[in-house]
This record gives sequence, C-alpha cells and structure tokens, in this order.
Amino acid sequence: MTKNQTNSTLGNSKKKANNAPKLDRGFAGQDIISVSQFSRENLEHIFAAAERMRTTVKEQGAADTLKGSVLACLFYEPSTRTSSSFIAAMSRLGGTVIPITQGVQFSSVSKGESLPDTIRTLESYADVIVIRHPEMGSAQMAADYARKPIINGGDGIGEHPTQALLDMFTIKEELGRIDGLTVGMVGDLRYGRTVHSLARLLCLYDVQFKFVSPEILRLPLDVMNDIRDHGVAVTETYDVAEIISDVDVLYVTRVQKERFADLSQYEEVKDQYVITPELMEHAKEKMVVMHPLPRVGEISYHVDSDPRAAYFRQMENGMYIRMALLAAVLGRA
Amino acid sequence: MTKNQTNSTLGNSKKKANNAPKLDRGFAGQDIISVSQFSRENLEHIFAAAERMRTTVKEQGAADTLKGSVLACLFYEPSTRTSSSFIAAMSRLGGTVIPITQGVQFSSVSKGESLPDTIRTLESYADVIVIRHPEMGSAQMAADYARKPIINGGDGIGEHPTQALLDMFTIKEELGRIDGLTVGMVGDLRYGRTVHSLARLLCLYDVQFKFVSPEILRLPLDVMNDIRDHGVAVTETYDVAEIISDVDVLYVTRVQKERFADLSQYEEVKDQYVITPELMEHAKEKMVVMHPLPRVGEISYHVDSDPRAAYFRQMENGMYIRMALLAAVLGRA
Amino acid sequence: MTKNQTNSTLGNSKKKANNAPKLDRGFAGQDIISVSQFSRENLEHIFAAAERMRTTVKEQGAADTLKGSVLACLFYEPSTRTSSSFIAAMSRLGGTVIPITQGVQFSSVSKGESLPDTIRTLESYADVIVIRHPEMGSAQMAADYARKPIINGGDGIGEHPTQALLDMFTIKEELGRIDGLTVGMVGDLRYGRTVHSLARLLCLYDVQFKFVSPEILRLPLDVMNDIRDHGVAVTETYDVAEIISDVDVLYVTRVQKERFADLSQYEEVKDQYVITPELMEHAKEKMVVMHPLPRVGEISYHVDSDPRAAYFRQMENGMYIRMALLAAVLGRA
Repeated sequence: MTKNQTNSTLGNSKKKANNAPKLDRGFAGQDIISVSQFSRENLEHIFAAAERMRTTVKEQGAADTLKGSVLACLFYEPSTRTSSSFIAAMSRLGGTVIPITQGVQFSSVSKGESLPDTIRTLESYADVIVIRHPEMGSAQMAADYARKPIINGGDGIGEHPTQALLDMFTIKEELGRIDGLTVGMVGDLRYGRTVHSLARLLCLYDVQFKFVSPEILRLPLDVMNDIRDHGVAVTETYDVAEIISDVDVLYVTRVQKERFADLSQYEEVKDQYVITPELMEHAKEKMVVMHPLPRVGEISYHVDSDPRAAYFRQMENGMYIRMALLAAVLGRA
Repeated sequence: MTKNQTNSTLGNSKKKANNAPKLDRGFAGQDIISVSQFSRENLEHIFAAAERMRTTVKEQGAADTLKGSVLACLFYEPSTRTSSSFIAAMSRLGGTVIPITQGVQFSSVSKGESLPDTIRTLESYADVIVIRHPEMGSAQMAADYARKPIINGGDGIGEHPTQALLDMFTIKEELGRIDGLTVGMVGDLRYGRTVHSLARLLCLYDVQFKFVSPEILRLPLDVMNDIRDHGVAVTETYDVAEIISDVDVLYVTRVQKERFADLSQYEEVKDQYVITPELMEHAKEKMVVMHPLPRVGEISYHVDSDPRAAYFRQMENGMYIRMALLAAVLGRA
Repeated sequence: MTKNQTNSTLGNSKKKANNAPKLDRGFAGQDIISVSQFSRENLEHIFAAAERMRTTVKEQGAADTLKGSVLACLFYEPSTRTSSSFIAAMSRLGGTVIPITQGVQFSSVSKGESLPDTIRTLESYADVIVIRHPEMGSAQMAADYARKPIINGGDGIGEHPTQALLDMFTIKEELGRIDGLTVGMVGDLRYGRTVHSLARLLCLYDVQFKFVSPEILRLPLDVMNDIRDHGVAVTETYDVAEIISDVDVLYVTRVQKERFADLSQYEEVKDQYVITPELMEHAKEKMVVMHPLPRVGEISYHVDSDPRAAYFRQMENGMYIRMALLAAVLGRA
C-alpha cells in the first residue's frame, strides 16, 4: 500500500473530510473519503471500470478479481442499502466480507475502545475497510490511522462519496453524457448530504442547476458559493412544476415533516415536492428521475413503471461503482 | 428469468399466499411461496435433487453449482435455524449470501420504506431472495414486485413451505416411501402453520392422519375440510398414548401454556403431549419421531438416543432441500 | 471425526472446562476448549502451522485449504475482535461462515431452546463450531453433545484458549523463543481470564513471572499454586515501575474502576498501571508490550509508535492462530 501515514500523531484531531488528498491515477492503496478527492479524469476512470463490472456481472455473475481479499464492513449505524451493496460487490469480485453491523450492541465500542484502535485491529484481519459512522470526520480519522485503504460509507452529516459516484454514473449511463445537462434537485437541499456531494461533483462538468425546495430547506450558502465559484448557472424555485419541463435529470429527496416548526407550513407546501404521473407528463421524453432511496411518498408508486424512473437502476449501478472502487483501491481495477 | 410480473399494479393488494402459481417442471426463475404450488411430481423432483445434494456434501463438502450467484437473506424477524440453513445451503453450492437480519434495527424499514421498494433494491444486488416476515402474505407481495425468484422463509401465520418440504423429504428418506403411511400429529394443531402445510402436502399421497391435541388446539376447520376433500382418513384424540402404536410418523409440536386462559386446564393435559422413552416402548419398531424444533420439553431428552428420533436428521435434511430449491429456482438443479 | 461422544447422558452436567481431554497429535476432529489440553509439543505444532498461515496470507491472501467447509460462529455475546478474527481466518482458508451474533435477539434462545439442541442443529449445517457464551463450562457442554469439533471462543469467566494461544505465538514470534524469558503481567490479575490462561501455558516453558497489580486484584491463589507447582519463580509488586527494566514481555490488562469499592483507593493507585513513553525508557531495548485489547487508557497512545509495542501485531497473529486451529481440527493442517 502506498498510503502516507500519520500514525504517530493521535489525539482528537478530527480533521474535516475534505482534507483527504486528491486521488492518484488508479487509486491503488488510497482512501475514498470525499468527493473533493475526485477530478473529472478520476471519475471517467471509475465509470469505465464500473461499466466493465456490469459486463462481468451480466455475463458471468461474478469474477475472481479479488479472490483471497477480505473486506471489513464496519457499520456503526445500520444501512441496509449501503452494506448490502458493498457485500454484493465484494462477493461478485470473488472476495469475502466481515460484516460488523451490530449497532448499539457493537461490543468493542461499548467497552470504550477508540475508533483508531478498532480500525487498526480490523486492518490486521482485512485488506480494505468500509466505515459508516454517525459522526462527521470519522472516516478521515479512520484513514489517518489505517495502513489499509478506507472507504467512507457515510459519516453523519459529512459525506457519502460512493452515493455521489453512483449518482454520477447513473446520469452518464442513462443519458450518455453529463456535459450540457440541466439538473433539477428537489426536496431537502439544506440537510441532504447526498445532494451536496452530487452538486459538487457535477460542477466538474458543464451543467446547469435548478434547485427546488421550501424556503427553510434551501441549499446552504457554502455549497451554493462552491457552485458559483465554478461559474455554474443556478436557479431556485419553490415548486417542481415550474422546472419539470426544463430538466434532463430530476434528483428527488424527501421533505421531512420534522424539519418544520410550524406543521401548517409543511401541509401547505408538501405537494409541491411530490413526483406524480401527472407531473411527469410535462417532463422531457428523454430525461431521468433519480432518488437515493428509501423514499416515503415523495415519488408516487405510479411513476415506477415510467421508463424515465431510474431509481432502481441507480441502485444496481451502486453495486458496479462499489465493485470498481474495491478493485481500484486494492490495485486490481 | 421467466416470471410474469405485475409490477405495474401496486397499492395494498396483499394477496393471499396460496395465489402463487403452480410450479413448472424445474422451477427455474419461479417463486416458492406456498405448498399449494407443489404437485406430487414437483415433490419427487425436488426430493431427487435434495438427495444429490446430500451426496455432494458427504463426498466433497460443497459444489460450484452456484458460483457467482448471490442470495439475499432478508429476515424481518430472527430465525437462527432457517437463516443458518439457507446460508449453509448457498455456501455449499459455491454461492454467497447477503445476510440482512437486524430485527428491529432494520434500517430502511425504520426509515419507513415499503416492502416492494426494499425487494426491488435487493434484487438489484442479488440473484435470489429469501424473505421471512411476520405478516401473512408478505412473501407473495415480495414475489409480485420482484423480477428475481423469491423464496418464502416463513410469513407469520401464513406459510413456511421449505419447512414442509424438508418434513416430507425426511419422511421419504427415513421410511423409504410416503404412500401407505399413518401420520400422527401431536400438540398445537390449531396455530401451528408447520402442521397445516405438512398436512396439505401429505394429502398428495395415500396417507392416514391421527391428530392429537387439547380441545382448544384442534386442527382448524379449513385445514380439516381440505384434508377430507382429498378423501384422506382422519381420527382425532386427546392423548398421544392412544395412537402411539399405530403411527409410522409422529410429528410433535409444542403445546404452549400461553394458549390456555385457564392454567389449571393446561396443567391437567400437558403430560398427554410429552414424548418419553416409556411412551416410545409402545411405538412401532420402524417409525420416526419428528419435530420442527426448537423444542421446550415436549420431547424428553432421553428420547434423543432412540434411533427412531429423527429430528436432528430432519434439520440436516433442511439444508439439502434448501440447496435443491436454490439451485432449482436459479436454473441449475 | 474421531471424537468420543457422551451424547447419551444429558441433563445439567456442566463439567468444568479443564475436563477436556489432552490433544492428540494433529488435533483432527478434536475440540479446543481449554489451555489445559495443550502440551508443549502441541503448542510447537500449532505455532508452526500458524507461521505457514502467515506466509500464505502474505504471499497469496488466501488458500483453498478449507474450500467446501463451513464454520458456524455462535456468539451469545458480541465480541467483534474474536468473531471478526475467526471470520477472516475461515475466509482466508477458502471456507465460509454462518455468523450467528444477534445478542439478545438470538431467536432460538429466546424461544427457550437448550444449548445442546442449538449445537446439534448447527452441526447439521456446519463442519466446525466456534462458541462464545457468557457462562463458564458452556463450551465444554457444547463439545459433550457435538459430533463436530467445537472451539471455545470464550466462556465467561472460564477460558478463552485461542487468546492464550495467540499470546504465546506472539511472544515466540517477537522474541524468537519463550524459554528463558521474564514475563511481567500488569493490571487486573484477579479477574482476567486472559492472564490466567496465558500464565498456565507459559508454565510449560522455562520462564519467570513478575506480577504487578493492586492488592485487591492480585492473582488468585489457585492460579498462583498451579504456577508454583511447576517450580516457576514468581515475584509480586504494586508498581510496574519496579519491574519494567527486568521484563522481556510486559503483558498489560486494564484495572477497572468498578472493581474498587473505595474510589479514592482507585485514584491513588491507577497511575501505577499505565504504560507511558517515560516508563518505556526504562525497559529493555529488546522486549515487547502486549495487550489483549480493547484498551481504555492503560497504554498511552504515544507508546503505539514504539517498535516494542506489539499489540496490533498480536491481533494479526490471532488470525494466523485461528487459521491454524480451524485447519487442524478439520484435519487439514
């Protein structure tokens, strides 16, 4: 492995996730912590690998690429989707998985062990570690102490880079390109880390944004400023109906009732963020509706049979992207 | 896969499990939801496959039949026996497993995701899904939305078809035939889905039944009528001692204290449903005692060393039957 | 398998762990329950196998030695370290694992099933079982009823033999020998089963002991007498500073605040059991600091970069020892 280690300094340094170094060509031995590590070239590289993974799965079910390799899935909070996807990805590459997903029962933690100690123990058994942890910065901290590659499977309100990568990959696969697209993002744009990470990656391409959210859930200023720094055109509205006919991608997230102090306010606006077949009649013929899932009502089930509904294909792409990342950091992509 | 899908209609249709279609020859791409899907020919087919599986395991430990295939084990309630058996079955066929068995912590569910969405996500990672769920009809609902084969691992008071199949297979293996046998069923015949499913499958053969239960736990009328429709001879008694010398198969289930409003009533009858070495002295020399396990006192530990005690062999048969089913629905049996 | 079974006698016999029979050459088909089963020759045998396992992992990642074999990991209490290590060990030998680690949700147990029944069910699916259970004697009880090999993964205040073996192996690997060493053991010597088991194994060699603990956490009389029966030289002190310059091995365990009725007493002594860089200045140049982990402050993080800090290498050795044991009991070492 080629990682630069900082094992000698410990303590409570909790660096911010976006301190992770830019990725080298090929990613071998490197950590995947933040979307900020990715250049456009890195993305193209991983998309090409993910396409090869799809072909392998469709033709053979699995490969022996990572035979003999072990992945530790260290989930401090449950996430069926992410953990299942990584387990399937490792399995379809011929590798094996140590699943550690015991939530509150997580034993060493309940005994008070520090995250660095847990990581250094697991890397003595495994070749690569995926960590999901409720605290922002935890994945970077894990990476700081590990000799083996760390993949961030979501660190609280921090990042969830593999989600952003699979979102990008889905846009590319569905529409054949990313440059030139108009991307609508709908729902909770304030707290949704998924939206923030995806928006930042999209800024590496020539896109336009149309943001749709209730006033109290507008995109935070820091993300908005990052986007503007890239010279990307942005519009903001309150109602998805206003932008539905303009977008090539409609990325939907949930507007949670809990975010509203005044529930009457929620009741007033909620219907403006629900995707229905009626709304879809106004959308372009060639466009995609995406969602990170799980959904709870924000996309009508009746939209599922619409060929533009890409969210289940998006899930499947998650497996290919994770296969590509695992193979890459283990030097086999 | 050859499944007919009904993805376009959603909502709360919750069809009853026995709406599942009859199985084609070979089962490839089909769902295993209910014993009602099985003809006598289907049973012979799966028993023959299970016997081949036994030979493979005894001679080689495992095969590569399902190399490259992934099973998702989606358990909404824990069941060590069923999940362990499926994991072993898939492993011994060279496939891999995504275990999702986190009970109440089950994350997407706690986020309010619908069963169809969870299923459609998992089938984007896996090739086949085993589902166990506390609600009757859930397995059929999963099958309605899935493109990949669904196997019912128990749906509440509904069905548990792989249990019934392993029970049938055990009778066949232990006694060499099913036709002509007298089958005693003992204990909780009212609530025991295991007993109901097994009784229905046995009606495909030329058998006689002897049912033994407390009055309040007698076989429900609908199951009894189904049996009579097949022209199968039935007797009912309160005491296992009355039938012990007549039966070729004694299928024992637990009489739970909780079923009795009046505990003195329970105390009065409970000993009539416990299998002891003394009782076994009156049984045929060639017969079998079976139990779906776990047991809590209804079969004395002292019976375990009796060669007629088949319940641990029955467990082992569960693995072979599940191997046969997995290979069959994936088109490799 | 060559095990002598006692399946015919059941009941509540709960034999003590050290009733386990001495190991034959090779261990095939035998149970690993207690360190008392091991002779010096057995240890050399397993250390040689573990060294071969290390070579395999370093050179190839994994082997096919146990292809087709299935391990059931039956954990009645969570232990990330032990279960992860066994899962990695089995995976790196080409075998597969049934993980059963659901803590309080453990279903058959919550249904009241006895340990022997659970074991006999699991051995119908698996080829070898690792059991961790909070009650002393449970691993031996499991072995009494199993036809397949049982490995004790820790039985409450009883034993944790694979921990003791990996500790011994680490000393051998780090220092090249065990004969002639002076071993310091620090911390909670009263309740620490790890310390007791290791001390007993060390008595098979020509060693000296230096025990360091608070008065109330001194080594129990029975362990001390066993050591003295072997004619091993022993000293006891209250302060690690007194022995740091003498020892070749410093085995550190935690002094838990909860052991002290009078907290002021704890405050008074606690610093005498913390390993710091300052303390390490007085240690030999060639010696090792070990710890079973997890640690909570008893070894300063600043010691981690000291080349004599062996605790993370010790973890890795745990995987090699467990690989060696699994291969051995399955007749493939």
